[in-house]
Amino acid sequence: MTIKQEKLTVIGAGSWGTALALVLADNGHEVTLLSRNDSQKQEINTEHRNSKYLPDISLPENIVATTSLEEALEGIETVIVAVPTKAIREQLRAILKFQQKPLVFVHVSKGIEPDTLLRISEIFEQEVPKSILKEIVALSGPSHAEEVSLRHPTIVTVSAKNMEIAENVRDLFMNQNFRVYTNPDLIGVEIGGALKNIIALAAGVSDGLGFGDNAKAALITRGLAEISRLGTKMGANPLTFSGLTGVGDLIVTCTSVHSRNWRAGHMLGQGQNLEDVLQNMGMIVEGVRTTKAAYQLAQKYHCQMPIAEMLYHVLFNRVDAKEAVERLMGRLKKNEMEELVDILSAQMEQS
Amino acid sequence: MTIKQEKLTVIGAGSWGTALALVLADNGHEVTLLSRNDSQKQEINTEHRNSKYLPDISLPENIVATTSLEEALEGIETVIVAVPTKAIREQLRAILKFQQKPLVFVHVSKGIEPDTLLRISEIFEQEVPKSILKEIVALSGPSHAEEVSLRHPTIVTVSAKNMEIAENVRDLFMNQNFRVYTNPDLIGVEIGGALKNIIALAAGVSDGLGFGDNAKAALITRGLAEISRLGTKMGANPLTFSGLTGVGDLIVTCTSVHSRNWRAGHMLGQGQNLEDVLQNMGMIVEGVRTTKAAYQLAQKYHCQMPIAEMLYHVLFNRVDAKEAVERLMGRLKKNEMEELVDILSAQMEQS
Repeated sequence: MTIKQEKLTVIGAGSWGTALALVLADNGHEVTLLSRNDSQKQEINTEHRNSKYLPDISLPENIVATTSLEEALEGIETVIVAVPTKAIREQLRAILKFQQKPLVFVHVSKGIEPDTLLRISEIFEQEVPKSILKEIVALSGPSHAEEVSLRHPTIVTVSAKNMEIAENVRDLFMNQNFRVYTNPDLIGVEIGGALKNIIALAAGVSDGLGFGDNAKAALITRGLAEISRLGTKMGANPLTFSGLTGVGDLIVTCTSVHSRNWRAGHMLGQGQNLEDVLQNMGMIVEGVRTTKAAYQLAQKYHCQMPIAEMLYHVLFNRVDAKEAVERLMGRLKKNEMEELVDILSAQMEQS
Repeated sequence: MTIKQEKLTVIGAGSWGTALALVLADNGHEVTLLSRNDSQKQEINTEHRNSKYLPDISLPENIVATTSLEEALEGIETVIVAVPTKAIREQLRAILKFQQKPLVFVHVSKGIEPDTLLRISEIFEQEVPKSILKEIVALSGPSHAEEVSLRHPTIVTVSAKNMEIAENVRDLFMNQNFRVYTNPDLIGVEIGGALKNIIALAAGVSDGLGFGDNAKAALITRGLAEISRLGTKMGANPLTFSGLTGVGDLIVTCTSVHSRNWRAGHMLGQGQNLEDVLQNMGMIVEGVRTTKAAYQLAQKYHCQMPIAEMLYHVLFNRVDAKEAVERLMGRLKKNEMEELVDILSAQMEQS
């Protein structure tokens, strides 16, 4: 494979940012990784390791870390933004201090902003002037960073309004282990990635309560239905929820030991309260903020989202988790098709 | 809840038959469980245990085992047939020797018969004269027997041509832990339950080869797409594959340690050949026969089923599993939506 080698920057040296830097470096690109602290930078540059996030991985020498945003932006045309959704606005404002030329922004975050109810690409559009925002591309799909860094086979999706640029980004990342496909439905790709974290939290709660795989499968099935229902009302193509960024990402997040949303839910199910869980995790749990956003979206779009609503009350109103999950399991309509037909009707209205 | 108490018979004292007998007994019905051997019958009737299949469960006293089919059929109006798909025809012929009155048959098997390519309910229709076959009802969904026997929350679906009878069967089984819903799409319910075993075998192969959750999620996503594609061509309602008997059952079978299809695939992925795997399992692995049937169905309906085809060659033509899975991962179309749109087109043709 002949890949045009580029100078590329990944902002955020957490597990996902580092794993993506590694994919790009494997493809021969010259990768700058922006770190927030000197000791991490030193470790990456001298020991070629990021022991906090990917302890067992030896990083290629064409990944160079820096703590200087100005330096990181020098001479690049594409930047990968891999920071928690909560930090995106601040990060973009910092970039704008140094950046004059147009950039392709690739975001790899999964969330929806509470209160504004904006998708990630919409936050970028709001913060970055058109003269600088050449394009915003979303990269999403079932992809645990740990496995990507071990070069295990992984398939993800990229999406953007301008599909030619999405294809360029696909070509930057694509290799034998990390396969990248395109999907023109940016709304669906972003909604699926964001909302699956809610279902993963709920699946964790169910597991933490000691319920089994049967209960979890029922919960995931209903979760997919409510994601499709809301996403379709927000303008997504319903088919996207049957794809990698929909059911694929949902499955991996709800059933994998690597998922921090599942782990947080598991602790909640075991009886811990939200503050303790977040403190114990020591990492951002995107699903918690997204649950608030989904609760608000359900009201805005008059959309039934029983799992998101149940979880919202467990997280923020101290409703008992066991009671909430049991009520949820008992709520299914007697005819399963009724619920599915509701979704189809929503799709028909849209098309 | 007031349930009309009935005399009911479950044929087959394996793990699923025994777990379903237990659900019916919990609802106060008088349950006869047909066993194939005397020692199992004795154990159930005197120790109230079925140590081979559900070793940790104490059975209610209103489950009575017998080895006499004639005795088991006495005075009942509904029979639950819980035998491997391979044994169904023989079992039905045996029943017909004793049965003169019409019966509601509930089948709980998941498979498609190779060569004839008949669904389970079609096998019943072929074997049982109309004067005896009052109705054939399918019960399916994400439901490991072990968890049902522990009274963990479980949701399943029943389906039949005559929905009134399906609702009667629902009411026999429904309780607080075991929830039963109806779906009029008998074809979709049977196809989803049968074909997910193929994907579970493939997921096991992937895990056995040491690939991770990312790869497995991609495989399950593609698997759901190919099940929907074939099922729709066979006359199913595509929505069924988004429900409990579709994606729900697929998830539980592909990700649970209880799944014997997954376990068989895992051994194959680790390098064992089919004969050794089947010998080691000591249990029927429905997915193996169903793979052959799916391979034949794909040809009959001119339907692309890359996972079923890959697995067919691994199982029956000794193709190397690692090479097959890697080729499969590389085969995805560049635009994910193309594949999904193919499915939608097939749906449109149908409606």
